[in-house]
Amino acid sequence: MELFTYFRSSAAYRVRIALNHKNIEHSLTAVNLLSGEHRQNNYLALQPQGLVPAMKTDDGKIISQSTAILEYLEAEYPQNSLLPKNAYDAAIVRGWSNIIACDIHPIDNLRVLKYLASEFGVDDEQKTAWYRHWIIEGFSALEHQLIAAPYCFGKHITLADVYLIPQVYNALRFNIDPKIQSIYDACNRLDSFQRAKPENQADSTD
Amino acid sequence: MELFTYFRSSAAYRVRIALNHKNIEHSLTAVNLLSGEHRQNNYLALQPQGLVPAMKTDDGKIISQSTAILEYLEAEYPQNSLLPKNAYDAAIVRGWSNIIACDIHPIDNLRVLKYLASEFGVDDEQKTAWYRHWIIEGFSALEHQLIAAPYCFGKHITLADVYLIPQVYNALRFNIDPKIQSIYDACNRLDSFQRAKPENQADSTD
Repeated sequence: MELFTYFRSSAAYRVRIALNHKNIEHSLTAVNLLSGEHRQNNYLALQPQGLVPAMKTDDGKIISQSTAILEYLEAEYPQNSLLPKNAYDAAIVRGWSNIIACDIHPIDNLRVLKYLASEFGVDDEQKTAWYRHWIIEGFSALEHQLIAAPYCFGKHITLADVYLIPQVYNALRFNIDPKIQSIYDACNRLDSFQRAKPENQADSTD
Repeated sequence: MELFTYFRSSAAYRVRIALNHKNIEHSLTAVNLLSGEHRQNNYLALQPQGLVPAMKTDDGKIISQSTAILEYLEAEYPQNSLLPKNAYDAAIVRGWSNIIACDIHPIDNLRVLKYLASEFGVDDEQKTAWYRHWIIEGFSALEHQLIAAPYCFGKHITLADVYLIPQVYNALRFNIDPKIQSIYDACNRLDSFQRAKPENQADSTD
């Protein structure tokens, strides 16, 4: 299993956590988004959108989109399961995950912020307000629902934690709800989350 | 099974297609987003974010977020499966679905367009350019990958069609790639897709 990653990519961070949590043997190949490696032909041949993460399976197949990769890992590597067995409980966990994956992360993505600046002349202060607005809206929806004892869904790590922690990491400069902060702290006491952190990646420049 | 829906909601449209495709007995309860029914206490008691779709299971439990609802339906009602059995093929289908669910739909959502207008003074022409930009970017990524013979993944309807058709419906005023258009036409020859269309809903005002 080879993960194409960038230390600052929040979606790659999700997959790094899951690979660690499930103890899946893997290698990490850094794709430097800042220097444009994702737009070079050798990467585009693998992932035509030029997006990270992408995962190469042991038989050389490529999977894109973090949600698809995570569901694949869950199906093929059931150890340390990231979804409750009960279908309704799994739906709750997927619903929380999707608040982050759909309602927050895509709107605050770098390519969107770039469009705001280049096409609408939005300045840095307005960009921060935008970024903050969608995080607050999404986190407000989450904070009343999460169980947080100590993780999103209770005693076991689930996909919801895998999505939440990278999103909180990106939002630490804002005020974080105490319940979400406590989940963040609990997850980061685990080695699987520690090793997945941006600053602990080989390609980190921080 | 009771689906809380709004005829124009693209995410509710996805779930309507899946319920029809799987022949799952259900009722549709309209929530009028235009008159603000989603912000009234009786709906907020069910779905605290005030979002549609929401689904009430036969034992009275609520599931939110269309992706979570669709995965639940697939797990609990395996007939007319919307995911290939092979985990890698399922990952391809989920990856395509997520290009729509994450890379297009959230950015072109009404609440985002409203923010652009109210906070950044973006006019209608600029909003259309924004809307079109994210659709083109997402559809360009998709069109080279889709099998389209005659559906996204081949002979059988999958989740990718369930996500694609409502997104194309919203984009019909723009030029659509011929391969995507052919999938759209093929799906809309099926009764399950026809019955799910916005204009065929009881709450349609079109």
